[in-house]
Amino acid sequence: MSAPTLPAPGPDGRWADRLVTLADLPIRDELRGSEPYGAPQLDVPVALNTNENSYPVPEQVVEAIVAAVRAEAAGLNRYPDREAVALRDGLARYVGHGLTVHNLWAANGSNEVLQQLLQVFGGPGRTALGFTPAYSMHPILATGTGTAWVDGRRKADFSVDAENAAADVRKHDPDIVFLCSPNNPTGTALGLDVVDAVLAESRGMVVVDEAYAEFARPGTPSALSRLGASPRLVVTRTMSKAFALAGARLGYLAADPAVIDAVRLVRLPYHLSALTQAAARAALAHADALLATVEAIKQQRDRIVDELTARGLDVVPSDANFVLFGGVGDQKTVWRRVLDEGVLIRDVGLPGYLRVTAGTPAETDAFLAALDAALRDKEQKPA
Amino acid sequence: MSAPTLPAPGPDGRWADRLVTLADLPIRDELRGSEPYGAPQLDVPVALNTNENSYPVPEQVVEAIVAAVRAEAAGLNRYPDREAVALRDGLARYVGHGLTVHNLWAANGSNEVLQQLLQVFGGPGRTALGFTPAYSMHPILATGTGTAWVDGRRKADFSVDAENAAADVRKHDPDIVFLCSPNNPTGTALGLDVVDAVLAESRGMVVVDEAYAEFARPGTPSALSRLGASPRLVVTRTMSKAFALAGARLGYLAADPAVIDAVRLVRLPYHLSALTQAAARAALAHADALLATVEAIKQQRDRIVDELTARGLDVVPSDANFVLFGGVGDQKTVWRRVLDEGVLIRDVGLPGYLRVTAGTPAETDAFLAALDAALRDKEQKPA
Repeated sequence: MSAPTLPAPGPDGRWADRLVTLADLPIRDELRGSEPYGAPQLDVPVALNTNENSYPVPEQVVEAIVAAVRAEAAGLNRYPDREAVALRDGLARYVGHGLTVHNLWAANGSNEVLQQLLQVFGGPGRTALGFTPAYSMHPILATGTGTAWVDGRRKADFSVDAENAAADVRKHDPDIVFLCSPNNPTGTALGLDVVDAVLAESRGMVVVDEAYAEFARPGTPSALSRLGASPRLVVTRTMSKAFALAGARLGYLAADPAVIDAVRLVRLPYHLSALTQAAARAALAHADALLATVEAIKQQRDRIVDELTARGLDVVPSDANFVLFGGVGDQKTVWRRVLDEGVLIRDVGLPGYLRVTAGTPAETDAFLAALDAALRDKEQKPA
Repeated sequence: MSAPTLPAPGPDGRWADRLVTLADLPIRDELRGSEPYGAPQLDVPVALNTNENSYPVPEQVVEAIVAAVRAEAAGLNRYPDREAVALRDGLARYVGHGLTVHNLWAANGSNEVLQQLLQVFGGPGRTALGFTPAYSMHPILATGTGTAWVDGRRKADFSVDAENAAADVRKHDPDIVFLCSPNNPTGTALGLDVVDAVLAESRGMVVVDEAYAEFARPGTPSALSRLGASPRLVVTRTMSKAFALAGARLGYLAADPAVIDAVRLVRLPYHLSALTQAAARAALAHADALLATVEAIKQQRDRIVDELTARGLDVVPSDANFVLFGGVGDQKTVWRRVLDEGVLIRDVGLPGYLRVTAGTPAETDAFLAALDAALRDKEQKPA
């Protein structure tokens, strides 16, 4: 059975007698030349680039999470509840609309939820349609599951209306339509008339990504209220934003129970750890404490909108915890200059536009000061 | 923007005006009629069906995990380290063989690691080969990623040798070969000559699934010692078995750094939560305490082999924490009869065979008593 032991690698993990790169491995052709997805993870004083909640988890919730983990820890030798029933029940109570545990499903971040939906309803030979620019993971997840991706059209103000959405569905006949409300990176919520129009026009699944729903302005409806309209409608949510739990990785969906049966066919068994389930349950039991930051964040969001508008910038209305603004000229230059001031914001790849997360009042102060410095520079050195 | 709110579902999550089943949804054709993967999760006194470690996490490790989670909890509002550097460094120190952080990668269970490998090296138009019966998730993960699956051949005693493995690789020219050592469900480890022969014969990736490596009998080599031979070799491991952390969901791989670069192209961003990373790091820091159960489990494994052999059953030699045994006649009847005695074992779909996990001495006692009851019944009611 034995064979000679071979040399170990060097400190860089590479073997001296071979210099192998990614290009030397038999990866799929369509992945050649691609880069891993992800915003730069830089150590900066003010990070306003990934739409995290800037407020730490409050002490009472820390204690609840720690207690929940302690209760699970000795039993970690056993696999977790594969169905995450208690967690899904807690999520159902939180989202309301009369939904029950049978309507909810959870996974490691809404990315995994979306990937599961694509595996079961998309995949090779099938097509997904989204209205770009939207959440940039939608096309990446489509590609990762072999699903063809088609870009729908937004208007010049980044809005989508029922008429143009329905026309794009008619034109492309997709198997899955991704709507995003409030939309990332533009910030605006969709009217339910758009959801209804897309459902009426399509034969496939309609996924409304509501990651930022809790930050919407008063009167903004959720597609949760339309689940009764069709078993093809799916609403995805996350605890990463309003719940301030990005580090815990908990995304979920609400839909007809048949949709839950469908994702079960492709989910990895025991995909959701006992620790994740326990922490998320504890957080849901303290939802009020965690969501107490939402109003403060919305105030900063509205403040950023007002301040940038006052500076004559092209500000997109926002129902989320971030603001997209244009009129900055070369956004790469401004992004870098703002970073030089210690404030990390996001270049989402839209020429002339940048996106900033709404955090604490002090973070807004720092961002506005950094942006003013950048805009002053720009005036002094016109392109 | 608003639309009339629709009725909520009933207590079963279903809407009264529609009776939708999975079959009514536009799922992929190849998923129609399939069932979610997973062993029955039954509440029984003695669960020996999923190869869990029967020993709870010791108190000192519970305290370390709780402390590690407490240190992370307030900061859960931020996304976790996308690269899980500290955890991967801990895994490198644990596996040894001179490997470094650059050689390790981790995900939510080895299932997610294997899925990532299939996404980047398999997928539509590509083929994976495994030697059936082996870990039943291998073909399921292949199908889930659009990878064609080919069954290689084992001998009558379930062994694989270098010659027949190489012949199967030559015949099918796969993009990925899965080896499993010690093999689940049969229990036996592979010789490294098989790994070398498959590497020499193939142009694709060779994945050696070593989920049960820590339970192998003395002198059994790990494919980790062969990583220097080829950048196409990948060894996968898990903390679910010897480390008694099935509930924490932590799988990992070791390979050339170029392989890590490859899986980064398809991994979901922030796939591994801050809680998972913290708990796994704490467990690795207390590896000795967790692995202290391994010798006791191996003793029960060997005891089960001896006891079943003494009963005249056809017992497959085992390097794992479970034993496959045949000669029971209709395994479904025996499985049910053993369950009636409160002991849950596994029918892995091999006619005449059953698999039992080696746990505590008391669990072995209960299993042997239950099996004896089943075998007595069988003698009294010959088929």
